[in-house]
Amino acid sequence: MGGYTSTMSSLVLPENKKAKDSSSQLDHAYLLTASEAATQIRAGTMTVEEYARSLLRRIDDRDSAVKAWAYIDKKYVIEQAKALDKVPFADRDMPTQHGSPIHEGDFPKIDADSIAILRKAGVLILGKTNTTEFAATTIGGVTCNPHDPLRTPGGSSSGTGAAIGDFQAPIGLGTQTGGSTIRPASFNGVYALKPTWNSISREGQKFYALIFDTLGLYARSVDDLDLLADAFALADDEESAFAGVQGARFAVCKTMAWNEAGPGTVKALQRATELLRSHGARVDEIELPSEFNDLPELHETALFAEGRVTFLSPYRVAKDLLSPFLAEHVENPYPISRKQQLAAFDKMAALRPKFDEIASHYDAVLVPSVPDEAPVGHEFTGNAIFCAIWSALHVPVVNIPGFQGEHGMPIGVSLVAPRYYDRHLLKVSKAVGPIFEAEGGWKRKNVPGLDAGLVDEL
Amino acid sequence: MGGYTSTMSSLVLPENKKAKDSSSQLDHAYLLTASEAATQIRAGTMTVEEYARSLLRRIDDRDSAVKAWAYIDKKYVIEQAKALDKVPFADRDMPTQHGSPIHEGDFPKIDADSIAILRKAGVLILGKTNTTEFAATTIGGVTCNPHDPLRTPGGSSSGTGAAIGDFQAPIGLGTQTGGSTIRPASFNGVYALKPTWNSISREGQKFYALIFDTLGLYARSVDDLDLLADAFALADDEESAFAGVQGARFAVCKTMAWNEAGPGTVKALQRATELLRSHGARVDEIELPSEFNDLPELHETALFAEGRVTFLSPYRVAKDLLSPFLAEHVENPYPISRKQQLAAFDKMAALRPKFDEIASHYDAVLVPSVPDEAPVGHEFTGNAIFCAIWSALHVPVVNIPGFQGEHGMPIGVSLVAPRYYDRHLLKVSKAVGPIFEAEGGWKRKNVPGLDAGLVDEL
Repeated sequence: MGGYTSTMSSLVLPENKKAKDSSSQLDHAYLLTASEAATQIRAGTMTVEEYARSLLRRIDDRDSAVKAWAYIDKKYVIEQAKALDKVPFADRDMPTQHGSPIHEGDFPKIDADSIAILRKAGVLILGKTNTTEFAATTIGGVTCNPHDPLRTPGGSSSGTGAAIGDFQAPIGLGTQTGGSTIRPASFNGVYALKPTWNSISREGQKFYALIFDTLGLYARSVDDLDLLADAFALADDEESAFAGVQGARFAVCKTMAWNEAGPGTVKALQRATELLRSHGARVDEIELPSEFNDLPELHETALFAEGRVTFLSPYRVAKDLLSPFLAEHVENPYPISRKQQLAAFDKMAALRPKFDEIASHYDAVLVPSVPDEAPVGHEFTGNAIFCAIWSALHVPVVNIPGFQGEHGMPIGVSLVAPRYYDRHLLKVSKAVGPIFEAEGGWKRKNVPGLDAGLVDEL
Repeated sequence: MGGYTSTMSSLVLPENKKAKDSSSQLDHAYLLTASEAATQIRAGTMTVEEYARSLLRRIDDRDSAVKAWAYIDKKYVIEQAKALDKVPFADRDMPTQHGSPIHEGDFPKIDADSIAILRKAGVLILGKTNTTEFAATTIGGVTCNPHDPLRTPGGSSSGTGAAIGDFQAPIGLGTQTGGSTIRPASFNGVYALKPTWNSISREGQKFYALIFDTLGLYARSVDDLDLLADAFALADDEESAFAGVQGARFAVCKTMAWNEAGPGTVKALQRATELLRSHGARVDEIELPSEFNDLPELHETALFAEGRVTFLSPYRVAKDLLSPFLAEHVENPYPISRKQQLAAFDKMAALRPKFDEIASHYDAVLVPSVPDEAPVGHEFTGNAIFCAIWSALHVPVVNIPGFQGEHGMPIGVSLVAPRYYDRHLLKVSKAVGPIFEAEGGWKRKNVPGLDAGLVDEL
């Protein structure tokens, strides 16, 4: 679960731009990744405004079906785009409701750190996307899965996952406390990086459980995740020596939660393993030592105990507007004792270096992202158990799309590395992603221009 | 170090109030603790407005000398007080500058969680007090020590410590990342509780290092700390069985930083030990195992490494307005590697349950609060080494005033307990405090009405 979500269009450095005589050939510019768009804008073959207009047309076409956006002011987006076509800028003007009626209409006057950094990097902020309540529940909202409107887009970063998956924006932000970044990424068929804990400032994003809360990055390509990682100054100790899938060494780990895996995930993990092997990698099946077995329970104990602190303020101010699930954190009827809370906190802390050591023997560890494809219905955003393990261990995780479930919905698998091997993990993902996308079995459908191969002409 | 600071006048439940015919006998109401004021307000012998007017007169008299306040709107304080004399209220309207020119004039429209909770409890918020830059440096600001204007009030919560010590407000908030709550408390001769890490939401307070940042509470009596602890729902697993100093068991621990202790602290710790013994307690001298020896260095490594993340946003947005010390965190020229950062993070995590176990054999552990009395000058707010140990270990700490240095300035000593023994520690402090205050040797001077014993007549 996580915090509030923003979605932005592209990392653009406004230089050497000129308006085009006709924008008709840019009607499908929304198909571009942020990296591709930035290249065109730098080359002067597209303006930020043209790109923004294409994205806004896509949003116009799709928002009634997908409902990803919590706030978008189209006139202002165009003004920002025009400003980016001229000079850098700064502003602070979107309401932040944390998916809760308690904050209806709240307009913070100070940007979250992450937004301030992106604006400074020249990013065009399109708007704010929908989250579940305080990005902390699994109760679905209005957003639909773009690949099947009867299914959940996942949560808590429901709107970001759906908007990126639906080509309404190329890159976006979310947070993850349990599975709020990786789960929507898997359900919507996009890439996401949940980086090492506290490697990006989440000041200004709503808290849930400090010891897990992590800012998450979304995109439809690893190149775009790299752009965001640059903006946020993610840095490993050393440059990765990874030289490609051929000859690489992976582990595959079903995890202690494997009995939650449905047929879609069972097949996806098997297929992913086969693909890595068929491309020349060695893949060892590993099992975590038994002391890792209760990680999901430890995560839940600490989550609820920290939620007790986080939700005291809205509970005191407006309990009636708080969902019973979050009110319960404060009332602690279970009860979780301080002793249990500390035991969970300390045990997870002790497991972190142990997992780092295990993962350090591989280029990456392949694990499930979710139990299965996105479930039918909008009431429940899905089970976070496979993600919570890595949230608890603070390690970086990349969801890679490419597989599909029994109903044709996307399923991703995750690659995991030791803490602060984020850039290494992106490098590995950049090699693995195209293989899974090409041979995993799932293809994006019903995106105008994409099916016709128009993206190559842009 | 820490976050931004607010100071409030009292926890008052506005019931059964009536205006008094004459307020002359309430001229010295500022001498009251919050608990005493609340009792009078509940009894109808004083209104919130009368109490507020007395505090504002005290502030008028003293602000030119002490300079504790970053923002105070006296008219608005009186309006709030009148409103509290009638009905509960809520508002959100003070600038939050984090002691940095980058945030000059910023008026957040959403209260910090801690402030929302206190407003809901009926607390009259007087204003915001001064902090060092982002509450993260030891470079002094304009605030003076009320007991000697040539000396520092400590930091980062400089204004709160000074205002409480100077009877300009009875209770206040600060944060502590290194020693930002306990150090100003010691230097200004007041009580403070740095509670267990993350036992009070610090959402809305500026970050420095998430794994240490803790909201701190200030008062001139333990009863008032108890009021605040109630408001923030601090709760131990079990009610404390502590039954008084007679027959209690304490440890005294000079810590691995003892070579930093000056003559004032050496004498204070010795006198405190003698006083506990002379009042019937057993006091064992203990030494922490050698694996605790590098705690100050581990704290500093993690502090700088987390500061690298926290200050990236202001660095990118307005590097020229950031102090070189904080810019250096981002530039990391030392450099601190990820490997060193993780080693520090994991080692501190492993030491926490070990210290809990050691402390669990005592009613409390007596330790130094600071190296010595407040140093002369305003450039440097003082050394946090004795506080950083407990910030790193996440344990609750109470500063108890009562001792004095070679120049007659106040010196406190600290009591420490295992994590989540906050209420127990307050109970112990309530018994120990009056002994140290009566027999420790330091007396408050030059407070009109206090010297004349007027407080007893109120």
